[in-house]
Amino acid sequence: MEPEPVEKTLHAAMQLILDFLQENQNSTLRIVDFLPPQQLAEQFDLTIQQQGLANHQALIPLLHAYLQHSVKTGHPQFCNQLFAGFNFPAFLGEVFTALTNTSMYTYEVAPLATLMERFLIEKMGKLAGFTNHDGIFSSGGSNSNLIAMLCARQQRFPHIKQLGNSNAPPLVCLVSDQAHYSFQRGAMVLGMGLDNLVKVASDPQGRMQPAALEAAILHAKAAGKQPFMVAATAGTTVLGAFDPLPQLHAIARQHGLWFHVDGAFGASVLLSQRWRHHLDGCHLADSLTWDAHKMMNIPLISSVILVREPGLLREACGSEGGHYLFHEHDYDVDQFELGRKSLACGRRVDAMKLWLAWRYYGDLGYAARIDHLFELTAYAKDCILAHPKLTLMVEPQSVTLCFRYQPDKTVDLDAFTVRLRDRLVRSGDSLVNYSLLQQGVAIRMVFVNGDMQTSDFDHFLERLLIHAQALEAEL
Amino acid sequence: MEPEPVEKTLHAAMQLILDFLQENQNSTLRIVDFLPPQQLAEQFDLTIQQQGLANHQALIPLLHAYLQHSVKTGHPQFCNQLFAGFNFPAFLGEVFTALTNTSMYTYEVAPLATLMERFLIEKMGKLAGFTNHDGIFSSGGSNSNLIAMLCARQQRFPHIKQLGNSNAPPLVCLVSDQAHYSFQRGAMVLGMGLDNLVKVASDPQGRMQPAALEAAILHAKAAGKQPFMVAATAGTTVLGAFDPLPQLHAIARQHGLWFHVDGAFGASVLLSQRWRHHLDGCHLADSLTWDAHKMMNIPLISSVILVREPGLLREACGSEGGHYLFHEHDYDVDQFELGRKSLACGRRVDAMKLWLAWRYYGDLGYAARIDHLFELTAYAKDCILAHPKLTLMVEPQSVTLCFRYQPDKTVDLDAFTVRLRDRLVRSGDSLVNYSLLQQGVAIRMVFVNGDMQTSDFDHFLERLLIHAQALEAEL
Repeated sequence: MEPEPVEKTLHAAMQLILDFLQENQNSTLRIVDFLPPQQLAEQFDLTIQQQGLANHQALIPLLHAYLQHSVKTGHPQFCNQLFAGFNFPAFLGEVFTALTNTSMYTYEVAPLATLMERFLIEKMGKLAGFTNHDGIFSSGGSNSNLIAMLCARQQRFPHIKQLGNSNAPPLVCLVSDQAHYSFQRGAMVLGMGLDNLVKVASDPQGRMQPAALEAAILHAKAAGKQPFMVAATAGTTVLGAFDPLPQLHAIARQHGLWFHVDGAFGASVLLSQRWRHHLDGCHLADSLTWDAHKMMNIPLISSVILVREPGLLREACGSEGGHYLFHEHDYDVDQFELGRKSLACGRRVDAMKLWLAWRYYGDLGYAARIDHLFELTAYAKDCILAHPKLTLMVEPQSVTLCFRYQPDKTVDLDAFTVRLRDRLVRSGDSLVNYSLLQQGVAIRMVFVNGDMQTSDFDHFLERLLIHAQALEAEL
Repeated sequence: MEPEPVEKTLHAAMQLILDFLQENQNSTLRIVDFLPPQQLAEQFDLTIQQQGLANHQALIPLLHAYLQHSVKTGHPQFCNQLFAGFNFPAFLGEVFTALTNTSMYTYEVAPLATLMERFLIEKMGKLAGFTNHDGIFSSGGSNSNLIAMLCARQQRFPHIKQLGNSNAPPLVCLVSDQAHYSFQRGAMVLGMGLDNLVKVASDPQGRMQPAALEAAILHAKAAGKQPFMVAATAGTTVLGAFDPLPQLHAIARQHGLWFHVDGAFGASVLLSQRWRHHLDGCHLADSLTWDAHKMMNIPLISSVILVREPGLLREACGSEGGHYLFHEHDYDVDQFELGRKSLACGRRVDAMKLWLAWRYYGDLGYAARIDHLFELTAYAKDCILAHPKLTLMVEPQSVTLCFRYQPDKTVDLDAFTVRLRDRLVRSGDSLVNYSLLQQGVAIRMVFVNGDMQTSDFDHFLERLLIHAQALEAEL
């Protein structure tokens, strides 16, 4: 690798990055040039030849094309997912993570990253109200929830690790009907079976109903099953709702069940003095999922599973093996060899980018961000309420807004909403999602981009109304 | 985010990158300034304050410090892990992946990355001899092996997905005693139990013995258990051995068992016409794990699980749920909505960096790399054999070398070897690992850095002998 061509190529790549970042901030530029798969495959040559490219500079047009065909998730009109926005310090963290390219199993190969991960686990746990807890960065929120289920099983039925589930009563985990689908996948993976993931009814705001939880536990017991875990949600995927943690915790405890809080989306609200009351009671949890790649705006993935009982993570996830990797040292290996308590062997450094961004913004910077997101949602809600043809579907619980447009003519409102959203996306004006609520199909906007301003929402609404009126005219 | 300070900071970061890359190539520079955790924590201020930093430029000293305290995994003396070396095109791929920051669940938010992932799955499967297969990028080799176990269970016992394991006979998976420890974790996670992961004896070269496999299957059946899967290894972690795939496959088939090949380390050998015979028979596998972040030198993580039966991955990993995410489209969603067959919800783009690097090097570039690694190992082996005080522990099977130094005095050779390795690491001269073989503790070197030259090995040996003689003098 000769230094000079590398320098030239890096320079050209830097220019692409700067241009992309600038375009990314402009609400009036298209968020994506949508092409269906067939057409995109025709426009972009995917082939890999026997012969490679002659020089590093030849990478630049490929990178340029990649940017052109990418969705601008940092664009102020990207409100489609639980992540959005661009975080420059965290981006630099990612770049240097890739540059140093190491693996989070032993202190020996990842010394500083190990200290950073431990520091963040401690800090995030303290924010949740834990003390002397443990935790690990996982491969995503689904994986964090799976690890929580595994820890719960390990604490209640430690023999399963060695002997397996067979010839034991079915284990039952209880979640709300608004819980993330990762619990279903967890129930499948762990060999519990989908039938043994019990979905408890939520109220119209999307919060798990304590009385329904109690009834579901009793029902499972009466059926000869073995409830072992309640998983509450702090920030549901569709409505951004927060389950009533203290009440749910009391019921779980009364029945001797593990109490998990899936805060993949909502745990970051702990950063705001003003809004952290949404998570009241989370200090009582046995485990907490917290994705920093959502409201904290870290590039994917940066997900943490916190466990209140130290040592349990190691018991639940660790096994014999890896004698070629894990050695005795003159430092405390249980503390610093994170691979001993992970389900992964080779594991990417996901802590460094979070550490760097958090250091950059400080606690107050993140608090201001969360407050801003709530304010933005409130502003958007008022705009919806003020417009005669827009209907607010559910009172927003946090930073998620569900609404729809009501044409004058009688139409299939669900189909109309889907078509309207499709126009927004394919025009490149905006990327928001739609979802099926009890009340029907709604457009769901998520306010997670801290750089978004009220004027960006005004722009969104203007475009939405134009598309809606055009659609209505076609009826 | 003002453009000007961002540009300045990016520029300064680029200079750090260039300096790091240059240092990285020099065998005579220290590979790490090893500090134990306590001391490192004293030297690097980990704290995060309420107030953030004033400007982006303040990130540069932090990034600089991160590099200083990192292990140089791209350094020619890093032969410690199954990954090593630096890949400039793949690094750029990582940078642009982070820049565009999207998630691999729907085509809508990751159009080109979805096409790239599908293209690579097809290409890698064809290299393995599959046709019309399926596959997905997972969060690592351990996760790929877990998904293979899940697919095996799904195909043999589809009712478990819904009903769970309970009240079923224990499922048994068979691996060699050299298999990666991820199978143990898989057995725990899936609720099979560690006792039901059966370890079959390997021969002195580390290859699973077919007769022992047959006996182990019969033994498990006689005990009333239900064998369902054989997992062979193509490239074992310690010895780099390749299990005899055709023989093992025949036994698995005869008993109606799923046949998985864990090629996390070794599948990349398929790229070399000269050495691909090591994987003869892998086209017969039901599933294959292939980590591109090992011999293909992609930054962590880039791991693929290939499954020969189309549709099974979706059945094994998919569930209901995600109505807010997965929609109907006018393109084939089963093909392009990769999240429907993943255990993850939000999933990082790990395909783009591989695609870019592969396009850059071409098939022939990668073939030359693999051939070079084998030649380097052969050269190193000859050096070991030629030295009177060095003992080759096992004939190298591929790109892994296990040996030790024999002092003249009678000593505890295992302890001596560990101490010698410790000196190499703490001096910053080299990072290699040690492992316990049947024959005793050996220094294990892995030749996976394609930029490494025979002169780098000469340098390594020179340093090793100096440390060994010093240690011997102290006896």
